[in-house]
Amino acid sequence: MSTSDMRSIVVVGAGAVGSYFGGRLAQGGATVSVVCRSDYDTVKQRGITVKSCDGDFQFTPTCTLAHDEPPNCPAYYYVIVAMKVLPHIDVPATIRDFVGPHTAILLLQNGIDIEASVARAFPENEVISGLAFICVSRTAPGVVHHQDHGRIVLGRYPAGRSSRVTALQRSFEAAGVPCRVSTDILTDRWAKLLWNAPYNTLSVLAGGVTTKEIMDDPALSVLVRQIMLEIRTIAAAYGCRIDMTVVDKHVEDTRTMRPYKTSMLLDFEAGRPLEVEAILGNALRMAAEKALPTPKLDVLYPLLATIDRAQRQ
Amino acid sequence: MSTSDMRSIVVVGAGAVGSYFGGRLAQGGATVSVVCRSDYDTVKQRGITVKSCDGDFQFTPTCTLAHDEPPNCPAYYYVIVAMKVLPHIDVPATIRDFVGPHTAILLLQNGIDIEASVARAFPENEVISGLAFICVSRTAPGVVHHQDHGRIVLGRYPAGRSSRVTALQRSFEAAGVPCRVSTDILTDRWAKLLWNAPYNTLSVLAGGVTTKEIMDDPALSVLVRQIMLEIRTIAAAYGCRIDMTVVDKHVEDTRTMRPYKTSMLLDFEAGRPLEVEAILGNALRMAAEKALPTPKLDVLYPLLATIDRAQRQ
Repeated sequence: MSTSDMRSIVVVGAGAVGSYFGGRLAQGGATVSVVCRSDYDTVKQRGITVKSCDGDFQFTPTCTLAHDEPPNCPAYYYVIVAMKVLPHIDVPATIRDFVGPHTAILLLQNGIDIEASVARAFPENEVISGLAFICVSRTAPGVVHHQDHGRIVLGRYPAGRSSRVTALQRSFEAAGVPCRVSTDILTDRWAKLLWNAPYNTLSVLAGGVTTKEIMDDPALSVLVRQIMLEIRTIAAAYGCRIDMTVVDKHVEDTRTMRPYKTSMLLDFEAGRPLEVEAILGNALRMAAEKALPTPKLDVLYPLLATIDRAQRQ
Repeated sequence: MSTSDMRSIVVVGAGAVGSYFGGRLAQGGATVSVVCRSDYDTVKQRGITVKSCDGDFQFTPTCTLAHDEPPNCPAYYYVIVAMKVLPHIDVPATIRDFVGPHTAILLLQNGIDIEASVARAFPENEVISGLAFICVSRTAPGVVHHQDHGRIVLGRYPAGRSSRVTALQRSFEAAGVPCRVSTDILTDRWAKLLWNAPYNTLSVLAGGVTTKEIMDDPALSVLVRQIMLEIRTIAAAYGCRIDMTVVDKHVEDTRTMRPYKTSMLLDFEAGRPLEVEAILGNALRMAAEKALPTPKLDVLYPLLATIDRAQRQ
């Protein structure tokens, strides 16, 4: 395998999102390796089982690498970063061994302001920003459960078009994964944060509640909208304009969807670190740089950061 | 025993606060009965053990009554209400059997706007509003642990002086309990809420932290002050002016005191209902009546109310 193999992909982070989409790409004919941390032994021996609402399938990676193991190949054509966004994870250091001159790096992660450090570390490589819209969770080592949805939005970072993005879109679509290309992916990222910020945050801070419990509480559902508007204002200050209909649609869609436990609540319940900085902290720092008021986020952030500190201890 | 016995006292609610101060009053020579709910059998058999930083002592109530038992005496000279302030507890109904024409009712409870319903139910009786400044917790049935402080502030409701308040002050002081009389007890109550609102609330919402952990977090300690200022503004709108030095002193005292678990955190950890309405809800409703903005409390209240609902289920 070499970078001349244009279908060679490595997925770094074999959690729920990485396992599912890596498995789909392999189904579509790509050569997909994975880099595991905690589940290495299981995945190396038995691969990954995807229990999917669209039909279960087995994903046997071409190579299964431990995260601290030197790779057995010089570089991949695509590096897909599917780890949680956490302060102690140094993404450039983690992926450096897999990146060659022709590698494009896809960040398939939550939160805002997550691309800049990778773009700085690999100035010659294309960085693609990606958003996964999927209900999927890791239920055991090497086992993920895909419950609903499963589409991707991709875009060149920071904006525009590229042939690498189009090629990657084709790979996803060949694998049966609906994939839209955005020429303004940062606005899409803010629009996704508009949902993630209130629901992830409130699901944990209200003591562990589903989206339905949030929407059934009149005061909490008011708060949801207020948080969305604060995020929307920050996005606008950075040139990302989100139509008010997106706010309305997020609220309405959540009101009618089945009770859903957010990823942050699942992390909280499992005692794992929370994506506090990606979901709230980065947005708040960007607001502070523009001196924007964030009265609701100012309350939620220190509460969540304190809970997260306790999780890590 | 009759109401002609001016030292006959019944303490309704034999939790930590009621047990401690009831025990002290008995030490001072008063005739003190208690009304118990969950600890009835233990207290009836063995009385109450007070493990105190000032020396342990035993409190054997004159009568120990179950909360649904008709009292064996027509009325008491003082009824001391030391129950938690919770929506499902009907204080007038609970104390009605103990109140005669000469009974004064002392509400030794947390929170704001807790006196009006009692004053309305007993228009001929004097209502005394009381604040306990004490670190005490119930560690087992019939056992309370007094860790620090132990003073009382009393005042006629809604304001002014009275001989009954002075007499009760003397009873407390005879029992070695420092007791100050206030002629403007509602302002004292708001000043106490200034402390209770931020620390009780944040101690639970930040995942279960002590006062020290709150003060050690720069963002949380900023939030403490902002919450105090919101409460102070509501108090002022109702004619209760609290000097800014009280805010500073609350913050400074808390910064230097030993790590302390608030009563709401203890209730939370024990799976008991939380005093959400007394500590936040009533203040918020009073703010709404005057159309005052409460941006921080508006976030904290629905989170805490949701946690409290889960506690009750």
